[in-house]
Order: sequence, then structure tokens, then C-alpha cells
Amino acid sequence: MNTIKFESDKIYGFVEKECVAGYLPKANAAMEQVKNGTCKGNDFLGWVNLPSSITEETLNDIVETANNLRARTNVVVVIGIGGSYLGAKAVIEALSNSFAYYDNAPMKVLFAGHNIGEDYYHELVSYLADKEFGICVISKSGTTTEPAIGFRLLKELLEAKVGKEEAGKRIVAITDESKGALRTLANNEGYKTFVIPDNVGGRFSVLTPVGLLPIAIAGFDIKAFVKGAKDMEEYCLNTPDNIAVQYAACRNALNDKGYGVEVLANFNHKLHYVTEWWKQLYGESEGKDGQGIFPAGCDFTTDLHSMGQYIQDGVRMLMETVISVENPNYKVLIPTDTDNLDKLNFLAGKNVDYVNKMAELGTQLAHVDGGVPNMRIVMPNISEQTIGELLYFFELGCGISGTMCDINTFDQPGVEAYKKNMFALLDKPGYEEESKAIRAKLNK
Amino acid sequence: MNTIKFESDKIYGFVEKECVAGYLPKANAAMEQVKNGTCKGNDFLGWVNLPSSITEETLNDIVETANNLRARTNVVVVIGIGGSYLGAKAVIEALSNSFAYYDNAPMKVLFAGHNIGEDYYHELVSYLADKEFGICVISKSGTTTEPAIGFRLLKELLEAKVGKEEAGKRIVAITDESKGALRTLANNEGYKTFVIPDNVGGRFSVLTPVGLLPIAIAGFDIKAFVKGAKDMEEYCLNTPDNIAVQYAACRNALNDKGYGVEVLANFNHKLHYVTEWWKQLYGESEGKDGQGIFPAGCDFTTDLHSMGQYIQDGVRMLMETVISVENPNYKVLIPTDTDNLDKLNFLAGKNVDYVNKMAELGTQLAHVDGGVPNMRIVMPNISEQTIGELLYFFELGCGISGTMCDINTFDQPGVEAYKKNMFALLDKPGYEEESKAIRAKLNK
Repeated sequence: MNTIKFESDKIYGFVEKECVAGYLPKANAAMEQVKNGTCKGNDFLGWVNLPSSITEETLNDIVETANNLRARTNVVVVIGIGGSYLGAKAVIEALSNSFAYYDNAPMKVLFAGHNIGEDYYHELVSYLADKEFGICVISKSGTTTEPAIGFRLLKELLEAKVGKEEAGKRIVAITDESKGALRTLANNEGYKTFVIPDNVGGRFSVLTPVGLLPIAIAGFDIKAFVKGAKDMEEYCLNTPDNIAVQYAACRNALNDKGYGVEVLANFNHKLHYVTEWWKQLYGESEGKDGQGIFPAGCDFTTDLHSMGQYIQDGVRMLMETVISVENPNYKVLIPTDTDNLDKLNFLAGKNVDYVNKMAELGTQLAHVDGGVPNMRIVMPNISEQTIGELLYFFELGCGISGTMCDINTFDQPGVEAYKKNMFALLDKPGYEEESKAIRAKLNK
Repeated sequence: MNTIKFESDKIYGFVEKECVAGYLPKANAAMEQVKNGTCKGNDFLGWVNLPSSITEETLNDIVETANNLRARTNVVVVIGIGGSYLGAKAVIEALSNSFAYYDNAPMKVLFAGHNIGEDYYHELVSYLADKEFGICVISKSGTTTEPAIGFRLLKELLEAKVGKEEAGKRIVAITDESKGALRTLANNEGYKTFVIPDNVGGRFSVLTPVGLLPIAIAGFDIKAFVKGAKDMEEYCLNTPDNIAVQYAACRNALNDKGYGVEVLANFNHKLHYVTEWWKQLYGESEGKDGQGIFPAGCDFTTDLHSMGQYIQDGVRMLMETVISVENPNYKVLIPTDTDNLDKLNFLAGKNVDYVNKMAELGTQLAHVDGGVPNMRIVMPNISEQTIGELLYFFELGCGISGTMCDINTFDQPGVEAYKKNMFALLDKPGYEEESKAIRAKLNK
């Protein structure tokens, strides 16, 4: 059963309850369109029923592949960009010990192909030189520039290190079912492969092997993660006015009132990359046609001493959505100190998280008083189950939200703009006209 | 000599050159006010001449203290929040090997006291259990909640582990010269101490021992870092229309034209925390009185596959400032592949950074075409010298920018709001009235 709650009572000082209620029918209708495949961009709705449709067989195959890599290696580099990076990164960071990689963790999952950093690759290659490593390469086409460069470099290194045959056993490719450069290579070399479904875009792919395999390699329970998502799917798709509908209604109502920036804040730094994933999900889905809520992220209380001043007192265009985690997984009490110079003894014997919770409540009251409408997403703890619920909640909320605005939520035409220029500047074969044009423009 | 350049030619399609030129006299005047101490908030201008006034003796003392900690320990936990965290973090991340801490680095600098994470402390304490560790605790008063909790926990751990005497040799306190809880404790226990100057606010403190000691502990050359800042100080304070003046003029002109969000973007992920530091610096300085440019950050090309779509096509309220690093520190060439399935052979033999540079140029052109005014900060490489220049440039640009808007750039009244509520909710002694009031409010 789904366990995550959504609260919106702290927005009604900024937008009337009746006004928000007026957005609910539209949000419910948008959900029906998403569910029935009648919204814009409906060739990319494969994510909607992913959690309930993934088979036990596929999950077992992923787990077995992960275990094979875990047996053969102690470092796996996941090569991917955008949704082929952020989904796995978000889940792994949420579930990991913050310091595990500084000790001799039995498995480290690193990332590459998500930047074009010459120093990054120098350092990564140096680091891997004396490690038993494997590669999980994720690319629909196999020709996306960033991951293709990363894969060339690391494949060469791995083959030189352990030979082509062993390398072939340590490389897993997640790619198109039948076409593209990576599919051809994987077939030629006999790599183990998983398929990126045609109807699932990168930013909605965390519940496909794109997210699941790296999460399993990192040692987490992907069946529990998928179950969490499935619980949320079943609840939402069968419940009018569900929490994803509510979230979409509230944020659209606020946006229409001039609150054009949404700050997603957590009080648990492990959710930092969930926020980064959310920024991609919402920014790339909604930021088009001169529209869209601008997504920004904060880790509190850290950033209360950074962005906190702005949120409290800056331009009143912000709404804030807080992810609250009710219970930590461990227990740490604040110690007593006989001298009490720091005057903290009034907190001695209390859980650290008790202070965190009062900071959270105090912040909510302060920001609302300061003119920032506040929503809350409450999860009982951080676990595979709850992260699965949370990510599906955000995906569905996004699908509803974009569909309410009558945009194609599932394309990303703007991402091509820099790529096209880059190919022209790099004189990529096939871009001869563009190369000429861009040089003319630069010489103007 | 300062080496950083600033370019603004890609904003003139959005705001007339004459219009920007009209902001220059105001920016120059603001700089004079900052320089001469006649701007608002002038009791917090100690940072202006920090680089030129810090003595060789102080620097040697910091280096010696760092070396002592490096000899006694292999992990130092820096306890601080806000500017007492982000300055050191930004410089250390910029200069560090991205994977150094995953191997047996001779020294790891970790951070605490910048959050209230119960799981974070559980994991940190577990990690430190079998490490030789030391503590660098930073707090003006010694009673700020977050660092005070962190210090209680880690001091107890350290004393239990190595005894009070050895612990006293491994703890360095950076605090007020004469008053406050941490000063008293440090004097009682005989800790080595450094002083936080009264006239330097947290977010401007990276060139005091607050930033310098952790940077030195991490093994970096603080003299070169200070020299970089000094070069920038001398150039700027003696040059009308200098690059900090230009930056302040441009961003204020754009803000007045309705570009109310500034995205600071890099093409080198090592600058990620420089961006976080910049967000604090500008957000906390300018986000007040219902005003201020909203600061946001991106790491490209990673985030071109996330926020890129929004930047290209979303609401046209964005200006973009790109930090460009001309030369990487290492050399990695893109390998040739006989099969060339990924069609990357047209790049074979090229530096990875060559592709990165074309991505950068292609992105600039795309974003400008998409309606985003673009500024560039160009640094020759990442080194102690250039990071010193960069941070001073941003500090002065911030002082000028805020002074142009006639605000007190150097206070942060909004940060108190959550703290006051938190103390009331925690029943902190002295907050009895506030506790009663906030409970009444909550029960309404």
C-alpha cells in the first residue's frame, strides 16, 4: 500500500481554496488522458503502467546480471546522460551510506558519459587502472556524443586490461531492441543487453532497466522499489483527486497566480539527487513554448544559510514543496555536556532528528509568513518502497501537470539546439551545410 | 597579475549597449563606496582588503597548523554552516581529484554541522570509529544550532577515542577573538585557534582562516590562492570599469529588463560547489526587501540534458553566466575505433576538451538564439591562483551589485526567521514567550 502523503493547506493564504478546487476537474481529466493515452505526446506513455507490467522474469534477469557484475568486479561505471544518469543516481544516493565509498565498499557505482570533462576522464581512467571494473552503458542510439566518448575510452581501457573476452562479460548494454550502433556492437560482441522501451523517454526511464540495473548493481532491492512504484500506480490510477492530481492542481493554480519558480526542498541531504532528477523531469517536460514553472532545489537546513534569505525575503515569485521524511533509519541522541558552554543541554537526550523536525516546521511557518506558499510531501522513511512511490508520484504529477497546460509533456525539442550547433562546429559528417552557416555567423 | 576575463557581447541583443553603458557610472560609484566604506552595511567590509592585508605570518601559522593536523590525522571534519562550509568546500572541490577520496587519500576533509541529519551523523560516527581524525570547528558564537550539535557529537567521540589531551591537539577552533562559547571552550581546553574578523560576514569569509585552514588541510597552496585574490583586488580597486563593475552593471541592466533569474553555468563539474558558494553569496546578499535576482546553477553538458530544455524554450526570464575554463590540467585524446559503429572517428585524436569547447560555443549560440542573454567569465585553467581570482571577482561584483540597488548587501535578516521559530518550537530557554505564541498559532 502506498504510504506517501501530500499536504497543501499552507497554500490557501495565497490562492483561494475554491480556486484550487476549480483546477481539480481539469487535473482529473488530464490524468484520464494520461491513463487512456489520449494526451499530447501519447507515443511516450510507456512509463504509466511500467511498475505493474514489468515481469518477475525481467526483474530476476536484472538481479542476476547485477549479481554477475558484483561477482566479477568491485567498480561498475554507468555510462549515460540525462535520464540515463539521474534516475539511478537519485535512487542510489537516497539509499546509500554517505561515506560508504570512502571505505572499501564491496561495490562502487560510478558515472561517466554525463559530461565532457577531460580532467574527469583522466582521473577516472587513473582510478580504474588498478580496479576490477565493469561497464553498464546506456544509450538508445549508441551515438549520443557524451556517452559515446565515455564508452570509447572505458571500453578501450577495459579490453586492454582484461582482454576482449573477459571485457565482453563485464559490459552490459541497455539500448534499443533492434537498431542502432550500440545494439549492433552488443550483438557483435555478445554483450548481455537490456531494452530501452520505445515508448519511454529518458526522464521517465528509472523503472526500466536503465534505472533498475544500476540500482541492483549498487546492492539495493529493486523488487521493493518497483513494488513501491506499483502501489502508487494502483492507488493513483484508480482514485480521483489522488495526491498526484492534487499536486498538479496546486502548482498550476499557484503558477497562474504568478508563483513561477518552484523550490523543491528536503531536510535530508540523501534526497539531493532526487531533487536533481525532479528538476530534469519537470524542467524538461514543462519548460517549452515560453511556458513552465522554473524548477529549483534546496537541501535544508544547509541551504537555509544560503538560499534561505532569498526565499524568506526576495522576489515573491516562489512556491516551495518540501519533501519531509518522518523517521530516520538510525538513532543518534544529542549528548549532555557538563559545562554546557554552547547552551545545548536543553536538547540533551533528544534525537538529532527532533531538532531537524522543529527546524522544518519553523521553516514552513517562516516561509509562509514571508509570502511563500508551501506544499509538503511526507514519506514515512527512506527505503526502496518509499522512493519507488515518490518517483512514480512525481512522474504522474508531471504528466498531469503538463497535460493540464495543453503541452506535449513528453518531448524535448529544445535539447537539440545545442547539439545541432555542436555538430556543426565539430564538422560532423552530414552537417556540412550547418558547419558553413555557423562559421559564417561567427565571422559576422 | 589577474588572468580572468569577462565577456558581455552576447547580451546586447536583449539590452542596448548604451543602456548598459548607462549603468557603468552607477557601478563605478558603487565600487568607490565599497572601497571607501561609505556603502550600506559598511561595518561588514573587512573582506574588501583581505587578500592584500593578510600577513605572511598568519599564512605560515595556518600552513603549520594544517601540517600538524595532516601529521596527526588522516581525516579532518570541518564543522560549520553557510559561509563556514561553502567557501572551503568550493575551493577544495575545484582543486581535488574527483576520485581521490575513493582511494587511500593521505587526507580527507569531510564536513559536518551543516545539516541536522540523524542518519548523516550515525554514518559519520561509524565511519570515523576506526579513523585517526581531527576537527576544525568554525563558529563565531559557538552556539549556532547546527555546528554546535555536530561539535558535541564529534568532540565526545574524539575524546573517548584518543583521550582529552590528544583530542585537544587535534581540535582547531575558528571563532571570535575574545567572546562566545567556543572562544571560552578553546581557551579552557588550550585548542589552537584562529579569529573570524568582526567585519567579515560568513559568505565573504573564504579568504580568512575560515576558508584558508580547511583548504590548507586538504593539501592546497593557500599562498597561491590568496595571491590570486590579491591580484584581482589590486586590479579591480584601481581600475574604473573593471570586470567586476562590468558584471554588476550588466546583470542589473538585465534584471531591470525583466531577466530576474541568473543561471550560473559551468562546463567543468569541479566548479559545482563554486556555483553553490555563488548562490549563497548573491542570494543572501541581494534577496531582500522583495527584490533580488534569483540565483540558480547548472553543470553542463550534464544539465543540458536536464535544465537545458527549460533554458532553451521556457519562460524568458533567464540570464546565463557561463564560467569557461580554457585549459584542462590533463590530456585525454579520443581513441580511434576500426569499426566506428558510433561514428565518432571524425573526433579521433582530438582532445576531449575540444568537444567540450564546441559544446560550450554551440550552447551559447543556441541559448542566445532562444532568448537568453549570455555573459562569460573565462579563466585560463583551474588552479589556486585562478580560483582565488574568481572568488574575489564574485565578492566584489556582489558588493557592487547590491550597493547599486541601494540595499544593505551584507546583512541577512531573513535567516533569523526560521531560527526564531525553531528555538520557540524547541522550547529553548529565553524563548518562553515565543514558544507560547507559536503553539497558539499552531493550535488555531
